[in-house]
Amino acid sequence: MNRGLRRIAVLTGGGDAPGLNAVVRAVAKSAIHRGWEVLGIEDGFEGFFNEGGIRPLSSGHVRGILQMGGSILRCSNRGDPFRYPAEDGSGPADRSDEVVKQVDRLALDALVVIGGDGSLMIGGRLEEKGVPVVGIPKTIDNDVWGTDVTFGFDTASQTVTDAVDRLHSTAASHQRVMVVEVMGRDAGWIAVQGGGSGGGDVLLIPEIPFDMDAVCGKIRERNEGGIGFSIVVVAEGAHPSDGEKTVIVTAEESATGYERLGGVGDRVARIIEQRERVECRSTVLGHVQRGGSPTSRDRFLGTLFGVGAVDLIARGNTGRMVAMKGERLTDVPLTEVAGRARRVEPDGPEVHALEAIGVNFGR
Amino acid sequence: MNRGLRRIAVLTGGGDAPGLNAVVRAVAKSAIHRGWEVLGIEDGFEGFFNEGGIRPLSSGHVRGILQMGGSILRCSNRGDPFRYPAEDGSGPADRSDEVVKQVDRLALDALVVIGGDGSLMIGGRLEEKGVPVVGIPKTIDNDVWGTDVTFGFDTASQTVTDAVDRLHSTAASHQRVMVVEVMGRDAGWIAVQGGGSGGGDVLLIPEIPFDMDAVCGKIRERNEGGIGFSIVVVAEGAHPSDGEKTVIVTAEESATGYERLGGVGDRVARIIEQRERVECRSTVLGHVQRGGSPTSRDRFLGTLFGVGAVDLIARGNTGRMVAMKGERLTDVPLTEVAGRARRVEPDGPEVHALEAIGVNFGR
Amino acid sequence: MNRGLRRIAVLTGGGDAPGLNAVVRAVAKSAIHRGWEVLGIEDGFEGFFNEGGIRPLSSGHVRGILQMGGSILRCSNRGDPFRYPAEDGSGPADRSDEVVKQVDRLALDALVVIGGDGSLMIGGRLEEKGVPVVGIPKTIDNDVWGTDVTFGFDTASQTVTDAVDRLHSTAASHQRVMVVEVMGRDAGWIAVQGGGSGGGDVLLIPEIPFDMDAVCGKIRERNEGGIGFSIVVVAEGAHPSDGEKTVIVTAEESATGYERLGGVGDRVARIIEQRERVECRSTVLGHVQRGGSPTSRDRFLGTLFGVGAVDLIARGNTGRMVAMKGERLTDVPLTEVAGRARRVEPDGPEVHALEAIGVNFGR
Amino acid sequence: MNRGLRRIAVLTGGGDAPGLNAVVRAVAKSAIHRGWEVLGIEDGFEGFFNEGGIRPLSSGHVRGILQMGGSILRCSNRGDPFRYPAEDGSGPADRSDEVVKQVDRLALDALVVIGGDGSLMIGGRLEEKGVPVVGIPKTIDNDVWGTDVTFGFDTASQTVTDAVDRLHSTAASHQRVMVVEVMGRDAGWIAVQGGGSGGGDVLLIPEIPFDMDAVCGKIRERNEGGIGFSIVVVAEGAHPSDGEKTVIVTAEESATGYERLGGVGDRVARIIEQRERVECRSTVLGHVQRGGSPTSRDRFLGTLFGVGAVDLIARGNTGRMVAMKGERLTDVPLTEVAGRARRVEPDGPEVHALEAIGVNFGR
Repeated sequence: MNRGLRRIAVLTGGGDAPGLNAVVRAVAKSAIHRGWEVLGIEDGFEGFFNEGGIRPLSSGHVRGILQMGGSILRCSNRGDPFRYPAEDGSGPADRSDEVVKQVDRLALDALVVIGGDGSLMIGGRLEEKGVPVVGIPKTIDNDVWGTDVTFGFDTASQTVTDAVDRLHSTAASHQRVMVVEVMGRDAGWIAVQGGGSGGGDVLLIPEIPFDMDAVCGKIRERNEGGIGFSIVVVAEGAHPSDGEKTVIVTAEESATGYERLGGVGDRVARIIEQRERVECRSTVLGHVQRGGSPTSRDRFLGTLFGVGAVDLIARGNTGRMVAMKGERLTDVPLTEVAGRARRVEPDGPEVHALEAIGVNFGR
Repeated sequence: MNRGLRRIAVLTGGGDAPGLNAVVRAVAKSAIHRGWEVLGIEDGFEGFFNEGGIRPLSSGHVRGILQMGGSILRCSNRGDPFRYPAEDGSGPADRSDEVVKQVDRLALDALVVIGGDGSLMIGGRLEEKGVPVVGIPKTIDNDVWGTDVTFGFDTASQTVTDAVDRLHSTAASHQRVMVVEVMGRDAGWIAVQGGGSGGGDVLLIPEIPFDMDAVCGKIRERNEGGIGFSIVVVAEGAHPSDGEKTVIVTAEESATGYERLGGVGDRVARIIEQRERVECRSTVLGHVQRGGSPTSRDRFLGTLFGVGAVDLIARGNTGRMVAMKGERLTDVPLTEVAGRARRVEPDGPEVHALEAIGVNFGR
Repeated sequence: MNRGLRRIAVLTGGGDAPGLNAVVRAVAKSAIHRGWEVLGIEDGFEGFFNEGGIRPLSSGHVRGILQMGGSILRCSNRGDPFRYPAEDGSGPADRSDEVVKQVDRLALDALVVIGGDGSLMIGGRLEEKGVPVVGIPKTIDNDVWGTDVTFGFDTASQTVTDAVDRLHSTAASHQRVMVVEVMGRDAGWIAVQGGGSGGGDVLLIPEIPFDMDAVCGKIRERNEGGIGFSIVVVAEGAHPSDGEKTVIVTAEESATGYERLGGVGDRVARIIEQRERVECRSTVLGHVQRGGSPTSRDRFLGTLFGVGAVDLIARGNTGRMVAMKGERLTDVPLTEVAGRARRVEPDGPEVHALEAIGVNFGR
Repeated sequence: MNRGLRRIAVLTGGGDAPGLNAVVRAVAKSAIHRGWEVLGIEDGFEGFFNEGGIRPLSSGHVRGILQMGGSILRCSNRGDPFRYPAEDGSGPADRSDEVVKQVDRLALDALVVIGGDGSLMIGGRLEEKGVPVVGIPKTIDNDVWGTDVTFGFDTASQTVTDAVDRLHSTAASHQRVMVVEVMGRDAGWIAVQGGGSGGGDVLLIPEIPFDMDAVCGKIRERNEGGIGFSIVVVAEGAHPSDGEKTVIVTAEESATGYERLGGVGDRVARIIEQRERVECRSTVLGHVQRGGSPTSRDRFLGTLFGVGAVDLIARGNTGRMVAMKGERLTDVPLTEVAGRARRVEPDGPEVHALEAIGVNFGR
C-alpha cells in the first residue's frame, strides 16, 4: 500500500443501532480528509452481490446524518458470503471468492466492517483470504468481546430508562406491578443500565437464572412496606433457574383471558398476577430500542471509532477491531473477538451496586 | 352556599393520564387562593370507602408536581358507589348514600371529579342525589363528548409520534414493514394525530373498519415505487370490515414460529408478512403512552380546566363539566356527556387531510 | 383555471419555525396526489430574483422531512418584491412586476406563501396584481391575526417549558431566583403557555406593562412563605409600566461586575438582585426556540394547513389564508390579516387562570 | 469502628449537577440496607452552621428522586468551614473545629462529601482533623482529577448536543453562523463532547487558545464549498491566543447595535460578523446545562459512586474519593485530588478525532 491515493469501502452489517451514521460519517470524512476515495456498500455484505449495491460516498452524502438513527447504507443480516443462501433453496454456498474479486476489481485498500459478532467474524475470515479488513463493534446489547463499550448501547439504555420512568408514574398511580421486556438475548447490559437507572425494583437478565419465589418475594416486601407498586425489567433472554417450569403457562390458563402471551416478560407478569393477586401489566418495548437519534455519547463513541478505523488503515494495521478500554481508544485482533461475548458478571460491580440498594435479580 | 369559607374535595377516577397533577394543582391552588379548604380523595371514588382515604391538600402538597406524570391522589377504576363490588362476591351494591353522607359530614360545598366517561357519569348521578359536582374531562383517547380536547391526549400522541420516528429509522435501514399498536379502544384520535404526525403510511382506527387488501395494496404500491419500508399504525380497537375473518390466524399458522400473537397489531403484521412476503415487525406501545411528564400543552389545558372548575363552583354552577370549544374554556351539563363519545369522523377533515397526502386508512 | 394539469409553487418566508417542513410536505404531497406539478422557491421571495432559486419539488424531495426542523426551501426575511433593496444602496425599489412576469412565465396557477405578517402582506399585494396566492400563517409567537393557532408555537412553548423545568431544579437546589428571557416581541403567548406550563412564578409579557414592585413583592412573598427560589419568565418585548425607568441600569452599576447586560431579562435580574439581596441568574433562550423537531401537534397542524391550502387552490379560492378556528380548519381573506396581530388579552382567560393559581404578571 | 450500628452523614457541595439525587439515593439506600443510620446535611457545609441544617434521611426521603434534577439536600458554594465568612465582614474565620465537634456530637462514623474540587479539598482537610471523609467527585465540567468521568457531565453534554441540533436547523434554513457559548471555565470537555456530537464546525476550548483567523478561515472554507452556514461552539473559558486583543470590541462598535455583549461567545460572534460579512447569531446556554432529569448513564454512574462510597466506609477506608478508571470503580486519596484538574489534551485522542473529520479548534 504505497500509492498516494487510497480507496476504501465501508458497510453496516446486522441489525441497526443508533450511532451507525455517526460512524459512517467519521469514516468517510476522515478518509476524504486524507485525500482517499470512499465507497459505501449497501445492505451489509449483500451489497457485494446486488447490482448497484456499491456507490461512492462523498462529503455531501454524509452531511447532516450525525443526528439520524438507522444507517444511510442500510443494514442487513443477510448476505454472509461464506454461507450465501442459494436461490434454488439447495442450501448455502460459499461465495466469498466473489467478494475477494470485487475488492480487487474495485482496487480497495481496505474494507471497514461495522457490525456485531457475526459480521466481524465474516470480516476476520475475509482478512484471512487477503482482504484488508478493519472492524468496528456494533451492538446495542453491549456484548461484543474485546471492547468495554459499543455505540448504540447508551441510546438503547436511555430509551429503556425513559420508558421505565413513564411506567413508574402509571404504576404508582394505580398501585400496580409493571413488567417491561427489553432487549438482551445473551447479555443483560440494557436491563442493568437502562432498567437500573429507571429505578426498576427487579431486574432479570440472561446471566442470572431467576427464581419466581425471589421475584414475588421482593414485590411482597414492597407491598408490606406500604409501597403498592413495583417495576420488573426483564431482558428478553432471561430464563428461570428451574428450566422453564415456572414460566410455562398452560393452555387452560391462557384461555382465561390473558391477552398477549408470548415472551418471557408476559409470562413473568402472568405468574406474578396469579401468585400475588395484584394487578400486573406487561409491556414489550421492542424495536423502538433500536431507533431514534443517538445520544451525545453514542455519537461521540461512533466518531472516535470511525476515525480510529481509518487511522488503523493508514498505518497498514488491518485485521483488527477498534475498541474502547476505559475512555481510551485501542484495537484488538479480529480473530480474538469472534465467538466470544462480554457478559454481565453475576457477582460483578454493577450487579453488586444495584443489589446494595435493594434491587432484586431474581435470586 | 353563602358561607365565606368553603371546602371542596377533588378526586382522580379511571386510568391515569399525563396532566392529572397539573389539574389537581390548579384546583387546589386556585381554591386555596380564594381562601377555601381543599380535600384530596385518594384512589378515585374508592377513597370514600377506605379508612384514611380523604386528606387535606395544602399548597405544599401540590408544589413541584406540575411536571410529574401520574396523580398524587392515585387513580382507580374501582369504587363505583352505585355498583360497589360486594366483599362476599354476591354482586355489586349501591353504596352511594354513604358517599352523600360523607359529603355532608365533611361539609363539602362541592366535589371535583376528574375522570373519563365512567367517572363523569357517576358524578352526574351524585349530583342528582344532591352532591354538588363539577366534572373535568380526562381521557388520553380524546373521546369525551362535549369538549374539543382533553388533557393527556397531546402527551400520548407525542409519545406515539416519538416511537414512530424511532421505528422509521429502523424500518428504512432494514427495508421492513413495522406495525405499531397504539391506544384507542373506541376512538382513533391517538393513531390519527400521533401516527399521522409520525409519518405513518397506513392508519387503522376503530371508526373505519379496515380491509387487508387495501393495507397490502398500499405497501405494495410503496415497494413498487422503490420504497421498501412502510409504517402501519393500528389503534387497539381497530377491526376488519369482514368480521374478523382476515385477521384470524389459525393455530397451524401460529405454530410456525410467530412469537407474540395477541392484539390486532400482531395479527395485522402476521397477515402482511404472509401475503406480501416481506419482513414485518410488530410493536405494542402499551402503558408507556399513559406515563411521562405532560407536554406543555397538556399542562396548560390542565391548568385552564382546574381553575375553570373552581370558578364554576364559586358561581354555584355545579352539575357541569368544564370543556374546551376551540381555544375557549366553556362548560356543558354533566348529563349530556354520559354515554356519548367523540369519535373520528370517517369523512372528517383530519382523515381527509391525511388521505390527501397518501395515507391509507385500510379502505 | 380549467386545465387538467396544474402547476403551483410554494415558498417559506420570514424566520424559520418548527413544522415548516411538515407544511411543505403536505402542500407538495397533496398537490402531486392531484396530479399537479409543484415548484419550490428557495430563500423566501428572494428565490424569484436568484439564478436557480426555483426548482421542482417531487415526492422524493419531501420524503423523510416531516420530523426535521428548519425548511428544506430555506427561509429568508429578505427579498420583499415591493421594497427590494437596491444593489447600489440607493433605497428599495419595487420589483413586483418581475415576480408577476415569472409567475406567468412559469405558468403557475397559484403561489403558496408560508409566512408571518410580513410575508402574508406581500402575498396579499401580489394577489391584487393578479397572482393567485394562498397564505399559510407561520409564527412561533402565535400572533398572526385571523387564526386561533399557528404551527411552530407549540414546539417553541415546549422548548421553553423544558428549559424552565431544568431551571427549576437548579433554582430549588441553590435557593436562587432564575430569570429566563423567551421569544415574543409583540405577543406574550410563548411566555404564557411555555412559562406558565413550566411553573413560572412571574410572567412578564408585552401586553401587560410590568411594575418591579409587583415582581419583587411576589419574590418576597415566596421567601416569607419559606420558598427561597422563584422563576421569572420574561418575553423579550416586555417593558416596564413607568417608561423604562426601573430597568435602566446605570453605567456605574454595570461596572460592578454584572457580566451580561443586554435584554430586558438581564435587566430585570439585575434589579431583583439589587433590591431583594438574593442570588439571581439570567438566561436568554434565544434561537434554540426556533429549532428542533416539531411536536406531534405542530406536525399535525402543519399537515392540515398544507392540505387546506391546496384544497383552496383546487376550488379556485385564492386571496385567502388558511386558519384554525377551534379545532376546525377554515380560511380568511389575506387582506384582513395584514397589519393586525393576535395578542394576549390582559384580562382574558389564560391570564385569569394563571393569576388564579398565584402567578404574578408584574401588576 | 467496631460497633454494629453505624451512622453516616452526606452533603452536596458546590454547584448542582444532574445525578446528585441518584448519588444521595444510593448512599442512603445502601447504608440503610446495611442497617446504618443516615443523616442529610443541607446546603453543603453551610448545614453544619445552620439551625436545623441536619436531618435524618430515611428510605422514604429518597424514594422517587432518581429521575429528579437538583439535590434534595440543596447545594451551596458557601460555608467553607476553614474560611467561613464573618458576619461583621471582618474577613473569613476558621470554624472547622465546630464541624469536628458536631461530627463527634452526632457520633458520625463518616461524612460523605459529594462535590467538586473545592468541596473535596475541604473534605481532605477535615479528614486531617480526624473526621472520616469519603469524597464523590461532582462536576458537570468533567475536570475532577483522579477519575476518568464524573456524573452530570453526560447530561450536560446531552443538553448541549440537543441545543446544537436545534441551532443546526435554523442555521441551515437561514444560512447563518450560529455561535453558542457553553459551560467549561477551565476545561473544554462539554464543548468537545456536547459540541462535537452536535456537529459543531468550530470548537473553542480553554485548553487551546484560539486564533480568529483560523475560525474565520473555517467559515470561509465552508462558504466557498457551498455550505452557507456554520456552528461555532465556545466554552465560556476559551480565550484568544493573542491576549484578548482580537475579542475586545470597542465601545464605538458596541454602540452600533449589537445588543447582547458580554461573554466570549458574544464577542466571537461579533468579530465573525464584522470580518466575514455574514449574519451571525449568538446564544448563551447558561444554567439550563445544570438542570434536567439526569441521563441513564449519569444515574448509573451516580449509583455506582454512591454505593462505592458506602463500601469504602464499611471497609474503614476513608480519606479517599471514589473514581472511575475506564468502566471500573476504584478510589484515590483525597489529598491527591486537590488543586489538580483533568483537562482536554490539545493533542489527545478526542481533539485528534474531531480534527480528523474537519472540526476546527481555532488553530
